[in-house]
Amino acid sequence: MSVNRDLEHMQMALEQARVAARAGEVPVGAVLVLEDGQIFASHNAPISLHDASAHAEMRVIRDACIASLNYRLTGSTLYVTLEPCAMCAGAIIHARVARVVYGADDRKTGAVTSLYQLLADKRLNHQTEITGGVMADGAGTLLKQFFRDRRKHNKAQ
Amino acid sequence: MSVNRDLEHMQMALEQARVAARAGEVPVGAVLVLEDGQIFASHNAPISLHDASAHAEMRVIRDACIASLNYRLTGSTLYVTLEPCAMCAGAIIHARVARVVYGADDRKTGAVTSLYQLLADKRLNHQTEITGGVMADGAGTLLKQFFRDRRKHNKAQ
Repeated sequence: MSVNRDLEHMQMALEQARVAARAGEVPVGAVLVLEDGQIFASHNAPISLHDASAHAEMRVIRDACIASLNYRLTGSTLYVTLEPCAMCAGAIIHARVARVVYGADDRKTGAVTSLYQLLADKRLNHQTEITGGVMADGAGTLLKQFFRDRRKHNKAQ
Repeated sequence: MSVNRDLEHMQMALEQARVAARAGEVPVGAVLVLEDGQIFASHNAPISLHDASAHAEMRVIRDACIASLNYRLTGSTLYVTLEPCAMCAGAIIHARVARVVYGADDRKTGAVTSLYQLLADKRLNHQTEITGGVMADGAGTLLKQFFRDRRKHNKAQ
């Protein structure tokens, strides 16, 4: 996958993150590109969907699995604006995603490089190619702005 | 929660695991008891549902969240016949499940005691009470039988 293609898909993921922010959800967006070129895009929505598991990554993986009638997404690439947590890293392994491209590091719950390195764990039955820090500034700025606005809003109440 | 109540709910989870086996899925079952006493039961079904994330634990968490219109299941107890993987442990944390009772250890992918100890990680924003080894023999026998039958079936083809 070319660098330009990576940037293009991460731009789409950032647009999804902005949709999440407008809905009052922590702004994280994801894009999943299947081996055959099909693209799925989604955003973080646990509050709106009443579903603790509804992170952006989980939603694109589920959507793609169901649409392709296959619980394995061999050869696919996942783009996500924030480093995946343990739940999402686990799903990435179960779905056999081939490559993960992410934006900002998540120092509090990141399970790809920050707290754990699940996608590189040789004891598990699948490892994933990883590219971190792609358009990290855009993703990080969105998150910071969101939490700043939320603090302001909470103080005003 | 009394020991008898634990055994009763684990028995229900084992029944769910048997349903999974009959459907050709790895036999794992889960039961989630909410703080108000509501009970949700489900089984592992990634192949049938075309969903890499459709582990028994994920399904009961999602079902309970959606039914209670709440992405947090504070005060709930999750019973599962096999030690949860990283994906499920992550979802347990996100959903704020208070207690996890599991059956057999999963030495290959377990993320509660075996490979990782996610539910006790103080760096994450929620910790969970854990009781392992409850009716572990029943859960383990089901799994062993399932994989033995599958090997036999594959050899016969």
